[in-house]
Amino acid sequence: MKEIDDTEAERHKAKMARRKAVQDAEVAGKTIEQKGLLIVNTGPGKGKTTAAFGLALRMLGYGRRVGVVQFVKGAWHTGEKDAFAAFGDRMVWHTMGEGFTWETQDIKRDIAAAEAAWAKAVELINDPTIDLVVLDELNIALRYEYLDLDMVVETLKDRREGLHVVVTGRNAKPALIEAADLVTEMGSVKHHFSAGVKAQQGIEF
Amino acid sequence: MKEIDDTEAERHKAKMARRKAVQDAEVAGKTIEQKGLLIVNTGPGKGKTTAAFGLALRMLGYGRRVGVVQFVKGAWHTGEKDAFAAFGDRMVWHTMGEGFTWETQDIKRDIAAAEAAWAKAVELINDPTIDLVVLDELNIALRYEYLDLDMVVETLKDRREGLHVVVTGRNAKPALIEAADLVTEMGSVKHHFSAGVKAQQGIEF
Repeated sequence: MKEIDDTEAERHKAKMARRKAVQDAEVAGKTIEQKGLLIVNTGPGKGKTTAAFGLALRMLGYGRRVGVVQFVKGAWHTGEKDAFAAFGDRMVWHTMGEGFTWETQDIKRDIAAAEAAWAKAVELINDPTIDLVVLDELNIALRYEYLDLDMVVETLKDRREGLHVVVTGRNAKPALIEAADLVTEMGSVKHHFSAGVKAQQGIEF
Repeated sequence: MKEIDDTEAERHKAKMARRKAVQDAEVAGKTIEQKGLLIVNTGPGKGKTTAAFGLALRMLGYGRRVGVVQFVKGAWHTGEKDAFAAFGDRMVWHTMGEGFTWETQDIKRDIAAAEAAWAKAVELINDPTIDLVVLDELNIALRYEYLDLDMVVETLKDRREGLHVVVTGRNAKPALIEAADLVTEMGSVKHHFSAGVKAQQGIEF
């Protein structure tokens, strides 16, 4: 075990006591007990959708209900979808996307798919039994203007009290960021794709 | 529905066909079929641990086994832990941390906890039935030098073939980033804590 002498231990204790005082003041400064959050996971890095599913899992762990709408991904067989099946009807899942827009190459079909996905999203947002709605890759549909930005942002702002919504995808629109409570930008520092490694089961899909 | 005329649809199709060619070339350039990845989720933003648990969920969805060691968090009751219980012994979970270092204020206890957590990590890394190991907040233990950096990095580099490891926590050490295959930096664009909102069940814990 690493050796620590008493002087060092005392110094550490004093430093951490000061740090705890700062933390406690910070916690005391927060006065809003409960708030349904509008959360945006954006940026070019990995983890936007994965973190949203991590939140979904946490909610499910508290016995709550979660709804997911996938705006872009097609009918891929993904590990998380199978895993969520363990939670039965507490997880409501709609895969509405037709695949990446460079796969379909059909703008009319893409728009129709985005509109159908949005209709499902509105259903989930208005379902009082659901506590968290994940709108996976909605940012892509907004970026390509498949959906009206103002209409989407207004609907999200007007969501019922207590409902958490997570929106994922690169290039989140400024109006959405403005409306959000929590925005995280995932930055790519290093990626195995650049080293010639293919997408890995359980990691990428 | 949004109106798209035929010229626009054709232009979109041509653009997406070019984009697909680029994507296909990129995919073709990847030649390594399978590789156990060393993944690091770092940065001040939200989602480092949550995304790691999202990956764990994906692996579980494929019927694989996952091990988690929590280096810093104490015996908190968190939603994800309850949720993972649905997967029985395919999820091996060790909460080894004593809580944040400013809560314990005891460096010797923190070091002993980090060393015990690392011993569990090595067990999981060497367990051939496990496909993904999450070392949650290991970066904190490395940052405070509770564990020897070279020893940790060497162990992670020497992991058995095919094993994926995710390390989370702020301030990842350069030597760890150097050894990693995939590094994501979570940046905080906006946080509800700054707006006076307390930690929310299902979101923060």
